[in-house]
Amino acid sequence: MKYFTEKDSVETVLARTSVAADERLQEVTAALVRHLHAFAKEVSLTEAEWGAAVSFLTKTGQICSDERQEFILLSDVLGLSMLVDAINHRRPAGATESTVFGPFHVAGAPVRSMGDDICLDGKGESCRFTGRVLNLDGTPIEGACVDVWSDNADGFYDVQQPNVQPKWNNRGRFITGPDGRYEFLGIKPTSYPIPDDGPVGQLLTQLGRHPYRPAHVHFLITASGHERLVTHTFAEEDQYLASDAVFGVKESLVASYERLEAGATQWHCEFDFVLTPSNAVPPLSTSSTHIRG
Amino acid sequence: MKYFTEKDSVETVLARTSVAADERLQEVTAALVRHLHAFAKEVSLTEAEWGAAVSFLTKTGQICSDERQEFILLSDVLGLSMLVDAINHRRPAGATESTVFGPFHVAGAPVRSMGDDICLDGKGESCRFTGRVLNLDGTPIEGACVDVWSDNADGFYDVQQPNVQPKWNNRGRFITGPDGRYEFLGIKPTSYPIPDDGPVGQLLTQLGRHPYRPAHVHFLITASGHERLVTHTFAEEDQYLASDAVFGVKESLVASYERLEAGATQWHCEFDFVLTPSNAVPPLSTSSTHIRG
Repeated sequence: MKYFTEKDSVETVLARTSVAADERLQEVTAALVRHLHAFAKEVSLTEAEWGAAVSFLTKTGQICSDERQEFILLSDVLGLSMLVDAINHRRPAGATESTVFGPFHVAGAPVRSMGDDICLDGKGESCRFTGRVLNLDGTPIEGACVDVWSDNADGFYDVQQPNVQPKWNNRGRFITGPDGRYEFLGIKPTSYPIPDDGPVGQLLTQLGRHPYRPAHVHFLITASGHERLVTHTFAEEDQYLASDAVFGVKESLVASYERLEAGATQWHCEFDFVLTPSNAVPPLSTSSTHIRG
Repeated sequence: MKYFTEKDSVETVLARTSVAADERLQEVTAALVRHLHAFAKEVSLTEAEWGAAVSFLTKTGQICSDERQEFILLSDVLGLSMLVDAINHRRPAGATESTVFGPFHVAGAPVRSMGDDICLDGKGESCRFTGRVLNLDGTPIEGACVDVWSDNADGFYDVQQPNVQPKWNNRGRFITGPDGRYEFLGIKPTSYPIPDDGPVGQLLTQLGRHPYRPAHVHFLITASGHERLVTHTFAEEDQYLASDAVFGVKESLVASYERLEAGATQWHCEFDFVLTPSNAVPPLSTSSTHIRG
């Protein structure tokens, strides 16, 4: 019979887990309890601080809705989201680096023709985006899907302003041809604050941190035989590049914006994406079997 | 300019905190980020697991209400509540040990006369509770307030069944006289499960753990010049003594229940509480100054 003691707190808790429980769950729970208890012991967590933490977590859960995920925001500002991304997407040299997915992707954006304009609200400084999707050895990838999304000139995604912005504003999918090239018109992105009117915003204020993300364009690039790439390109010279509230910036993802002297388009941004091969050939999907049958 | 890397993830995040932020907040945040990142690295947390954690925390927050605090329950079943209690209430040898406060205390219970019956619903096996409130040197403490609360024979506190149980059922406050003695009638407590129909209950199931607490009576004992004591006494021979879902049991808090042979009262439980002196004399309160003025 073993009762709880401060000294053996971790062992006492872990001894309760059934040996029949899922092995990975046991492993993750054991590490979580070990770190949680070590944290409380290290800082001699007071009862008032424990109470404040319970209240903070409760408020964080209660502000979540279909349109808002405050726990992802919390994970973001603590650097956990970027860490999980880094752990799960260690890429070989030369491959484009990944960054956080963010909460604003919408699946099923319209597939557009190369050169189309994705800015539907007429706001912002027009920019031509061009580049190639390449293999690690520099070979262009045909049939890659370049799924792009970004905020509008006011710093909001269309889904944040469903009654203000046209549906699919600053979003679209482009399928590369044999040259691996993509090209579309959009706008030079603007920096914006993450939603900061909730518990996470209050935490940032208390830590003396601002809530801004440097201007960026999101890309999700998929191609048969290659790992899915979730990344952004960041606008060079943005004032928040070195202090992204969610730590998403990597040096290799900072893109040049060239100012154009003539014509309606004011900027040009060229950026190549280099994909890594999949570790394995994906199995024949059920749907293609069905089609053949 | 320092961007996020897997290797320097902790330093990158902590460098953002303003040096002007509250010192204790900086200390706690630094330890939290260090342990959170170490945890994720140690288990190589997958994106699916991260997503499951976000979903779990969101559900935990959203089930909270005025009557239910699922984050306290989570803290309880991970042993964190008992650890925080232990860290903040290291008591000298001979003093009664503390245990978790729990969510069911209600301030302002009726002050009753010694010997009164606190069981108002007529359910359960009647028990006479007696004992003394003592100083560390064994001197009885006069004027100590013994605030007691427990579940009814069905395993529910009155506040969990406001339309079923009489208000203040199995609750009361008793003020000791010069002999330091307390005495009241109540019931031999019964074991009960913590609320297990939410995310925490699901976690316990996945870990192969039961949700039961061994039968216990809660005590909050206050006396001028002494530290507040929050504790329970546990019923000896309860089947869950060694596996309390919230780890609240300490050997010194297991109380004997003597079966009585004659009369309406079926049990007797004798337990002395030993308080520790306050570290400092409390300052003269504003209200007493006001009374004197």
